[in-house]
Amino acid sequence: MPAEEFDIVILGAGSGGYACALRAAQLGQKVALVEKDKLGGTCLHRGCIPTKALLHSAEVADSVRDGARYGVQATFGGIEMPAVHTYKDGVVGRLYKGLQGLVKGADGITYVEGEGRLASATTVSVGDRELVGRTVVLATGSYARTVPGIEIGGRIMTSDEALQLPEVPGRMIVLGGGVIGVEFASVMRSFGAEVTIVEALDRLVAIEDPAISKALERGFRKRKIGVRTGVKVASATQSDEGVRVELEGGEVLEADVLLVAVGRGPRTADLGYEEAGVAIERGFVTTDERLRTSVDGIRAVGDIVPGPQLAHRGFAHGIFVAEDLAGLEPAPVEDVNIPKVTYSDPEIATVGLTEQEAREKFGDDVSVYEYNLGGNGKSQILGTAGFVKLVRSGPQGPVVGVHMVGARMGEQIGEAQLIVGWEALPEDVAQFVHAHPTQNEALGEAHLALAGKPLHAHA
Amino acid sequence: MPAEEFDIVILGAGSGGYACALRAAQLGQKVALVEKDKLGGTCLHRGCIPTKALLHSAEVADSVRDGARYGVQATFGGIEMPAVHTYKDGVVGRLYKGLQGLVKGADGITYVEGEGRLASATTVSVGDRELVGRTVVLATGSYARTVPGIEIGGRIMTSDEALQLPEVPGRMIVLGGGVIGVEFASVMRSFGAEVTIVEALDRLVAIEDPAISKALERGFRKRKIGVRTGVKVASATQSDEGVRVELEGGEVLEADVLLVAVGRGPRTADLGYEEAGVAIERGFVTTDERLRTSVDGIRAVGDIVPGPQLAHRGFAHGIFVAEDLAGLEPAPVEDVNIPKVTYSDPEIATVGLTEQEAREKFGDDVSVYEYNLGGNGKSQILGTAGFVKLVRSGPQGPVVGVHMVGARMGEQIGEAQLIVGWEALPEDVAQFVHAHPTQNEALGEAHLALAGKPLHAHA
Repeated sequence: MPAEEFDIVILGAGSGGYACALRAAQLGQKVALVEKDKLGGTCLHRGCIPTKALLHSAEVADSVRDGARYGVQATFGGIEMPAVHTYKDGVVGRLYKGLQGLVKGADGITYVEGEGRLASATTVSVGDRELVGRTVVLATGSYARTVPGIEIGGRIMTSDEALQLPEVPGRMIVLGGGVIGVEFASVMRSFGAEVTIVEALDRLVAIEDPAISKALERGFRKRKIGVRTGVKVASATQSDEGVRVELEGGEVLEADVLLVAVGRGPRTADLGYEEAGVAIERGFVTTDERLRTSVDGIRAVGDIVPGPQLAHRGFAHGIFVAEDLAGLEPAPVEDVNIPKVTYSDPEIATVGLTEQEAREKFGDDVSVYEYNLGGNGKSQILGTAGFVKLVRSGPQGPVVGVHMVGARMGEQIGEAQLIVGWEALPEDVAQFVHAHPTQNEALGEAHLALAGKPLHAHA
Repeated sequence: MPAEEFDIVILGAGSGGYACALRAAQLGQKVALVEKDKLGGTCLHRGCIPTKALLHSAEVADSVRDGARYGVQATFGGIEMPAVHTYKDGVVGRLYKGLQGLVKGADGITYVEGEGRLASATTVSVGDRELVGRTVVLATGSYARTVPGIEIGGRIMTSDEALQLPEVPGRMIVLGGGVIGVEFASVMRSFGAEVTIVEALDRLVAIEDPAISKALERGFRKRKIGVRTGVKVASATQSDEGVRVELEGGEVLEADVLLVAVGRGPRTADLGYEEAGVAIERGFVTTDERLRTSVDGIRAVGDIVPGPQLAHRGFAHGIFVAEDLAGLEPAPVEDVNIPKVTYSDPEIATVGLTEQEAREKFGDDVSVYEYNLGGNGKSQILGTAGFVKLVRSGPQGPVVGVHMVGARMGEQIGEAQLIVGWEALPEDVAQFVHAHPTQNEALGEAHLALAGKPLHAHA
């Protein structure tokens, strides 16, 4: 077949790839978008969306159990996993259909189904088709990693399989206390399983501010989720009856299933990247801040670029590359200000620098304020504990970090993101008295206090 | 008794009064805070807080009923009102205790329990005590209004009594489709009552953008809440069996109880205001933008000042007056940018100008964009319909109004408020790709679209 020519050829139609395609098409580019699996990628089909559906079922289950506390007579009869999957798959299906409509409806995108491979600096081959672009964008995403010596299969699984569990396990061990591990632990505990998390580092969600880890661990202990930090797994085996996990030191844990949630690896092997000269480091594609790889004309976006592996970072990368190629000179995407939400119960939302990162950058002048949700009416109504912690660069400086924990606090990330993104002073935010009684008000109260004029708080 | 002297004497310890006292004390002023009922006022004891507790019980009830949809086997056994009240009163009690601690702990506030009366331009009398201030702040708040010819008592009630209902009524008529009416209608429907709202204007929540009213009415009809707009009540009577409401035109509605929710009147009568020369118009105290009344040295804050009767407006007024008196020259509180949340299901959150108000102010250049929550993953997960509507002053102008509807959308008001308050351009917001998958993302998507670069939306 003759080579087909495009302005941009994108390898991978997940969050980074399709966002790049849509934006490039808006800017008048002729785009090929190559995907071997399903449009939407990990996030839509095996990541963000299905896990958050499970987390909502979990929230509903807890609401039912706690009904009496709110005057609602309710009997919890258990989790019906087939119905959970129907619900989850229904959400994914509707969003998938919507996304297909967007891509089909976009002028200038040729969607190519099939396994693509980088054949040269300008060419992606898909079967016997040759797609040639002035630019090639690598957007091949990530896969659920495992640990050397632990084989996935049967009762030992990654998030891919855990999303499809036919029934709620009686006991589950979660290996890894990062975002994926704590989200699944939270779901399965709400579903009725006994859950133990094993994490080699000394705290859960170790990339977060330590105050957040502490609050999460406290919340999990209250929910009777076992938390074992600072300990490594020596071996994991399975039999017909269950799994057996031996910790370093000799202690043995037993359960029905083991979830291996040790992060996601970049999908960069056997795709022709190295042959084409694309520099790779520990599996990730190295880029400059404009997401240019070591090869002229090849860019990379999303989870294969070192940094937080988040769908909206992928979106931002994709949009950035499309706009950069069109000469719009967009500002590079900075990892530090990418908002992060962990949808466990309690929920975590953070943006910007942790206290420690701020102290490393700005020194001793950094100040912090922690507003406890105990003083926040709506949080009391929801029955949640938690806080809003602000980090300020110095006495006259802007807010450089916002760290929040508590039920539903994830949705506060929007205002927090603007504050950090716009480098607002506490006083800039404090001038706006926030709506009462919202959880959002806690963010306002924290800024009032940091600005030296606390309202519903001690100074 | 000898007169007691203060810098500021505040008559009324609700949201406006206590916020003023706390801020003034922070600024070194000597303050008397007078309250005949309970510190915290309407909002804490008979308004915002207890109604939002009922609304959360309502949400829990609906979660239980809808459990099967999410794979959760749940049986709804009814609402136990005594337990609802225990929960609600528990929330109020904890916040009350916290607030008492703040006021007691503040240096410089003398809290005076008793019925205060404005005795002169500088004096408030409480029993035989005379409190003299260089400034007097009137903060006497509001009461639940009724309609001429409809007497409150028995089966005919205002929100005060509706908050204490000993059991869920079988049928309820709500007279008034404003915030209070729709919130109680939403609660009682979730609690199992048959509810009909009667509103004289042609739509519910008539101060909102018409698109919001339409979405609320659609949501309510789906929940089988009767909505009768554009019709007035001719008479309302009660018997041992129930209430009978005759509409103009002759139609008769019957129910077990009638809630009269026609707004709140300012509490300004028989307090010595007029005798002291304070100008009053239709019951409200008239002020300039610095909240000065017609009498030198007397200010007014909160619900007695014409404008939206909201606790956080009271807070803002109170803080403003304290800072203004201390010479800090704060910017006046503008009613247009006060955020508003209605906690019904669906929930409403708005700030700034409606489309029509913007067109009156800025003419035909006004543009709007409506992002449907159908494209928002988290909203799909929650199973809610709704939208984010943005109003922009002109092709190069800032966002001057944000109007949102849908389950839990109230918490988006924080980012919306910053956008409108800081007069942000859509492009300013669109540069930040929002966290996925949050409802907050819908706000981001709306700004991306209005900035001409839609992501998960058609242009």
